Amino acid sequence: MRQPLYSLHPRDLSPHVLAMVGLPARGKTSIARKITRYLSWLGHPTRVFNVGNYRRNLLGAHHPANFFDPQNREARRTLDEMAMAALDDLLAWLGGGGEVAIFDATNSTRARRQIVSERCRDKGYPVVFIESICGDEAIVETNVRETKLRSPDYEGVDASEAVRDFRARIAHYARAYETVTDLESSYIKIIDVGRQLMLNRIHGYVPARLVPLLMNMHVAPRPIWLTRHGESIFNQQGLLGGDADLSPHGEAYARNLAAFIRGRARELGEASGMPGEPAWIPDDVVVWTSSLRRTMQTSRPLTQRSISWRALDEIDAGVCEGMTYDEIRLKMPHVFEARSADKFRYRYPRGESYEDVIQRLDPLIIELERQRSPMLVIAHQAVLRALYAYLMDKPPHTCPSLPIPLHTVIELIPTAYGCEERRFQLGPEVQSVGEAAIAHP
Amino acid sequence: MRQPLYSLHPRDLSPHVLAMVGLPARGKTSIARKITRYLSWLGHPTRVFNVGNYRRNLLGAHHPANFFDPQNREARRTLDEMAMAALDDLLAWLGGGGEVAIFDATNSTRARRQIVSERCRDKGYPVVFIESICGDEAIVETNVRETKLRSPDYEGVDASEAVRDFRARIAHYARAYETVTDLESSYIKIIDVGRQLMLNRIHGYVPARLVPLLMNMHVAPRPIWLTRHGESIFNQQGLLGGDADLSPHGEAYARNLAAFIRGRARELGEASGMPGEPAWIPDDVVVWTSSLRRTMQTSRPLTQRSISWRALDEIDAGVCEGMTYDEIRLKMPHVFEARSADKFRYRYPRGESYEDVIQRLDPLIIELERQRSPMLVIAHQAVLRALYAYLMDKPPHTCPSLPIPLHTVIELIPTAYGCEERRFQLGPEVQSVGEAAIAHP
Repeated sequence: MRQPLYSLHPRDLSPHVLAMVGLPARGKTSIARKITRYLSWLGHPTRVFNVGNYRRNLLGAHHPANFFDPQNREARRTLDEMAMAALDDLLAWLGGGGEVAIFDATNSTRARRQIVSERCRDKGYPVVFIESICGDEAIVETNVRETKLRSPDYEGVDASEAVRDFRARIAHYARAYETVTDLESSYIKIIDVGRQLMLNRIHGYVPARLVPLLMNMHVAPRPIWLTRHGESIFNQQGLLGGDADLSPHGEAYARNLAAFIRGRARELGEASGMPGEPAWIPDDVVVWTSSLRRTMQTSRPLTQRSISWRALDEIDAGVCEGMTYDEIRLKMPHVFEARSADKFRYRYPRGESYEDVIQRLDPLIIELERQRSPMLVIAHQAVLRALYAYLMDKPPHTCPSLPIPLHTVIELIPTAYGCEERRFQLGPEVQSVGEAAIAHP
Repeated sequence: MRQPLYSLHPRDLSPHVLAMVGLPARGKTSIARKITRYLSWLGHPTRVFNVGNYRRNLLGAHHPANFFDPQNREARRTLDEMAMAALDDLLAWLGGGGEVAIFDATNSTRARRQIVSERCRDKGYPVVFIESICGDEAIVETNVRETKLRSPDYEGVDASEAVRDFRARIAHYARAYETVTDLESSYIKIIDVGRQLMLNRIHGYVPARLVPLLMNMHVAPRPIWLTRHGESIFNQQGLLGGDADLSPHGEAYARNLAAFIRGRARELGEASGMPGEPAWIPDDVVVWTSSLRRTMQTSRPLTQRSISWRALDEIDAGVCEGMTYDEIRLKMPHVFEARSADKFRYRYPRGESYEDVIQRLDPLIIELERQRSPMLVIAHQAVLRALYAYLMDKPPHTCPSLPIPLHTVIELIPTAYGCEERRFQLGPEVQSVGEAAIAHP
């Protein structure tokens, strides 16, 4: 008997539409992308339909502010057509197997939201409106400068001219803007980037899943450093899993790591002062390890106190723990073959799959998003692949082949639309025995 | 090196005060108890300080409505004294190692909340106000009848007289009531039992943890049936863990279970019609199993589709999987002794403790609360002990000795302040080999 694992009640598996609401430069696209990244990572096929992209693709990029004047009837009709084209595609995509579709547009009038609701209701898809309201002019200003000026709409336009034009565009929308008030509909209002959240009729599994994510959005820039533990005795021998101690090479890496974090944290911390937030110092770095000896030993030379999470433990290889990949191939060829065929979904007998690892990491992702401090996560190959896939928005099924080498720090700095990545090989250099050679031929 | 496991950044471990706000009969005490049960279960020492109990304990129970008239200065002073006595005890309790204290009072004026905030701020404890607002008279009416009339305040008073008096008491509070509006403070407003939630400055770990719980509150009565899988081959032999098939006795239980659920669901379903909610039918029963064969096999004779969760898998006995308790005692006396000394926190080498099991069940508890359907959970002894401890508000450390016998259905029906429990021994009778005899001498 085939049973769905981890999935939910069939009623919850029906497609959902999330429709963004808000004036331009309120972070709608950034929120839509964050949701997409999170739900996709959790295994729910999710896609954004951005009306601005339809306009740019079909009409070209350069439209002056007065194109967005609600009195400009000609332009109004064109914009309405673009919105409906995006909505058509969205509904078709959900009909073809998509699970969560995000309608990324201003949807700033009651009349427009009525149309969206009706068209979704016709197909039987529930709609949740996600409205972003921002009264803090400094945040809007940052948003305009960081995202809008880089948009194709303003390619080749002088920055101050672009800001002026974009402010005029916002003003046009503001004249017709009506906030969501319909108590019968499902909505989430996000006020000032998560300072206040209002939830109305949010009960389904997917909408409920979004709340912890949306509560913990912030724009404080801080690095997240990911690293595997230093080389362990098992690594030297190419053995899977276990709870081995560090090798002398591994201990040397632990010392290199502590020195690196000290220096790099000071360097980035000095530049980290945000309006209203104090700059952070190396002592503010939050260190997470797994509950296994090799990650805790790697954290020892650090001056910061570390916190160990069982959820960060390496993928459980079940009956294959303590074996080498060669042994598995020889002694359990069926395991070896089944795993090679689908490394993402394959679950070791009495152990875990990558898919399982993602589920157990979910609460940690929320905690990671919530923290405003710089973070150092010392963990394991498979677990870091799953974290990296989330942070860098890689399709989850690619997890098993993401390169996370030993003795290397991956620095990720979250931005509005993703993360900036840098890698630092700290050494000592070690030979990788085992999976690498077999798994990524 | 001793590292905290699963715990959080030290900044988050400081005590918190949650102060309820709302008119009488808005479910404040019910919400306070739900929060206490949940946080205690997750390992955070949490206690409610109910001002009404202080009044009853110090002044006796019977106070007519006019005692609560804000114009009644004498009574006003007495009530204020009671509130401050409760607050004194609350602050002393937090000072002595408590983590989350709930101040369960109406706190219905700005002036009163100002005092609460200041007294907590003096001690360095952050305060979150949790306001329950209910505009639905039918819910208030149900609340008055189901909880207030049973209170010692109305012992021996005629029901209709008690309702009249309590309504007069509410009216007195309503005249002075001021909703929370201070945007600088942290608050959660719950409107109409979770239809709408407003979160303001909710960022810390503990407050954030509450939101999924508070979002999913509902008053739809429905049974939650807990049962272990039918007897397995391993159960017969007294072996731990593993992934064995059902014994013939176990298969007989699976058939008995299916017949029981069919009959019982019909019986309870017929009486389940709530205003505005359709009565449910046996097909509405949501069935959860673990990912192990013995629970899935137990679900087979049921007509409902089941969903299997890895989070419901039995406690991982690590290196002791497949052994008997006698073997462990003989071959690994240190394991046996360490486990006997603290069965709740003891973690099997390479396995789990009861404490670990609770952490991995947390998202399932939220999902269980969210569902409005009747639920059948087919799982394992340790996992069911943890679920039962949550539902029946048992101290988590008592988990390892809660009796969850084979071939027995535990029926729990949530009410405002807890659950009603019934047990059904469906048979066939089986002999329990192994832990029971040793673990609960």
